[in-house]
Amino acid sequence: MQVAPPGLKGLAVADTVLGAVKGTEGFYHYRQHDAAELARSRTLEDVWTLQIDGALPPDVSAIDAGPLRALPPEAAAVVDAASARLDDPMAVLRIGLLAVGAQEDRGPLLDRTTAQRRDDALRLAAIVPTVLARHHRRRQGLDPIEPDQALPHTQDYLRMTTGAGPDQAAARAVEQYLVATLDHGFNASTFTSRVVASTGADMAGSLVAAVGALSGPLHGGAPSRAMEMVTEIGSPARAGPWTRSRLEDGHKIMGFGHAVYRAADPRGVVLRAAAESLGGDLVSSAAAIEEEILRVLAEWRPGNRIVTNVEYWAGVVLELAGLPRDMFTPTFAVSRTIGWSAHVLEQAEAGKILRPSARYVGPEPARA
Amino acid sequence: MQVAPPGLKGLAVADTVLGAVKGTEGFYHYRQHDAAELARSRTLEDVWTLQIDGALPPDVSAIDAGPLRALPPEAAAVVDAASARLDDPMAVLRIGLLAVGAQEDRGPLLDRTTAQRRDDALRLAAIVPTVLARHHRRRQGLDPIEPDQALPHTQDYLRMTTGAGPDQAAARAVEQYLVATLDHGFNASTFTSRVVASTGADMAGSLVAAVGALSGPLHGGAPSRAMEMVTEIGSPARAGPWTRSRLEDGHKIMGFGHAVYRAADPRGVVLRAAAESLGGDLVSSAAAIEEEILRVLAEWRPGNRIVTNVEYWAGVVLELAGLPRDMFTPTFAVSRTIGWSAHVLEQAEAGKILRPSARYVGPEPARA
Repeated sequence: MQVAPPGLKGLAVADTVLGAVKGTEGFYHYRQHDAAELARSRTLEDVWTLQIDGALPPDVSAIDAGPLRALPPEAAAVVDAASARLDDPMAVLRIGLLAVGAQEDRGPLLDRTTAQRRDDALRLAAIVPTVLARHHRRRQGLDPIEPDQALPHTQDYLRMTTGAGPDQAAARAVEQYLVATLDHGFNASTFTSRVVASTGADMAGSLVAAVGALSGPLHGGAPSRAMEMVTEIGSPARAGPWTRSRLEDGHKIMGFGHAVYRAADPRGVVLRAAAESLGGDLVSSAAAIEEEILRVLAEWRPGNRIVTNVEYWAGVVLELAGLPRDMFTPTFAVSRTIGWSAHVLEQAEAGKILRPSARYVGPEPARA
Repeated sequence: MQVAPPGLKGLAVADTVLGAVKGTEGFYHYRQHDAAELARSRTLEDVWTLQIDGALPPDVSAIDAGPLRALPPEAAAVVDAASARLDDPMAVLRIGLLAVGAQEDRGPLLDRTTAQRRDDALRLAAIVPTVLARHHRRRQGLDPIEPDQALPHTQDYLRMTTGAGPDQAAARAVEQYLVATLDHGFNASTFTSRVVASTGADMAGSLVAAVGALSGPLHGGAPSRAMEMVTEIGSPARAGPWTRSRLEDGHKIMGFGHAVYRAADPRGVVLRAAAESLGGDLVSSAAAIEEEILRVLAEWRPGNRIVTNVEYWAGVVLELAGLPRDMFTPTFAVSRTIGWSAHVLEQAEAGKILRPSARYVGPEPARA
């Protein structure tokens, strides 16, 4: 029996044209394009188009998500019923995806044409902001704000969630965050979406499974914890002692270190610049705290270079855009759902069920 | 870069003590016990205990699922809201699992003690019959039937779903089905549950993801299709010509053939005996149709022995128990959820994220 490396680390389990991560170079790409450069220069809709339709506008028509953001009333009623009783955006997001998928009868990928699957991908990724914002308003006892199809996806998400027209600069910083985190190699949630898709299941089920993986603290749970740390540290002068004390107690420092990136996390670089473009006290304080933490980490393990990862500056950007901290990981899902949907489409074309084995390591069974 | 075999076939991606499948021998086991023999001789609760607590009663106390089947009122309200609007048992099952998980604040596995995780496993697997039956009643405009904690799990599921106290023989046949299908190696849904669990996500999210995989036609979708085929064929005399015509048109025959079993599918053997113990016209007709189909298949591909798989006789058993056909795959989830929950517990102890890679096969990206 062939045995996979622990955690499947480094094992290629699928072929993809959607992108890759080159950790030692601090580089990642979506199709043939530098992803960090896309985050700096392109809209979310442009990059969504790239991942679903294979090229950037104007070479192909840009996806217009505006009309796709509206929830069918029956699905909205299910989201409302859940929101009145559950205070959990990641659970209600999954309930919303299941409700829209079932309501609109978006059946098994195996039985859908290529065009229908593309339609499923666009529709279900497009409703993520609407479901999340609706839940967030309803759980506060507020009326939901309906989507405005004339607005860009990111702006409309922020407007529906916070209830205010966000300033353009903050919306653009969040858009850079969404583009920068839309896809990233073959992480656990992307892999999950493809395993489920490989059974011929529907788009909603594939995405819902991936949301579950993203909800895991070892995967998508860190952006709010990094921001909580910044708040807890408070002032740059306290950062050094705080970090040393955490390290001495055997803890990791949230927002620092990455499994793949050694030189730099290119997403961290983009998001630091995005935060700095907004300016203000939080940004300068976060920059000074980052500097102190990196200094202590370098002293702590001199040979082991640790970089600021995507979570640290992502937290600052989302905080400045007025999003509450329990909406940080759900906001990650706004763009990552787009990334998963492209992987699901690719897996559906590949058409082979992903069915590995396990190694039985218990006592030999009794035989009759 | 190490590349996995296509579909991950034959690749051991985890260690397990929960069981294994020995395809060439037509044998599978749960821990150290012949699974087909367990289906013949043990209750669902006994085997549930084996998989969760490691031994069969009376060596350990049997799990009492009765008190665990009751839904919290707030979660029941979410299930009702979904059931009034969605006609999809597999979607509403997932909504119910998410609602109970969030309502009872059963947080990330990573943050739960071993005892809390066991409690999550029992609770969430136990509500599956209640959610499914409630949905099935509500979508017909009928009042739900509340669980009776004094009844065995299988009997209570059938009573809540069909509205009638099922005869003991039919309930026992369904129980054999549930035991026989509780676990089965490292199929796509079990694998999915473990990938999600490996991120430290909660029990509900791990199970919900697995339900998504089970909903795929290439995985859990066949029992109703096999039964639909039996109905369509109608009489044994038509089975031969019908099968030949399907094969000539390039179709597979539902309920026949298995990726792993060559000699016999031991689950098919158990379920055929279970069906025969019930007797009646459907059983004798299904047996004669099976014989004809196997004869035609043997002629069609003389060197390639094809066996009756679990789906064929499972369909007959579920039909005789009065379950509607769109509840066949959901009924599969009644026991498979128990199997997944044991795998999630095992994965949570293993504690390492499953994060494979992909092989990028697109054009080289442009670099700045």
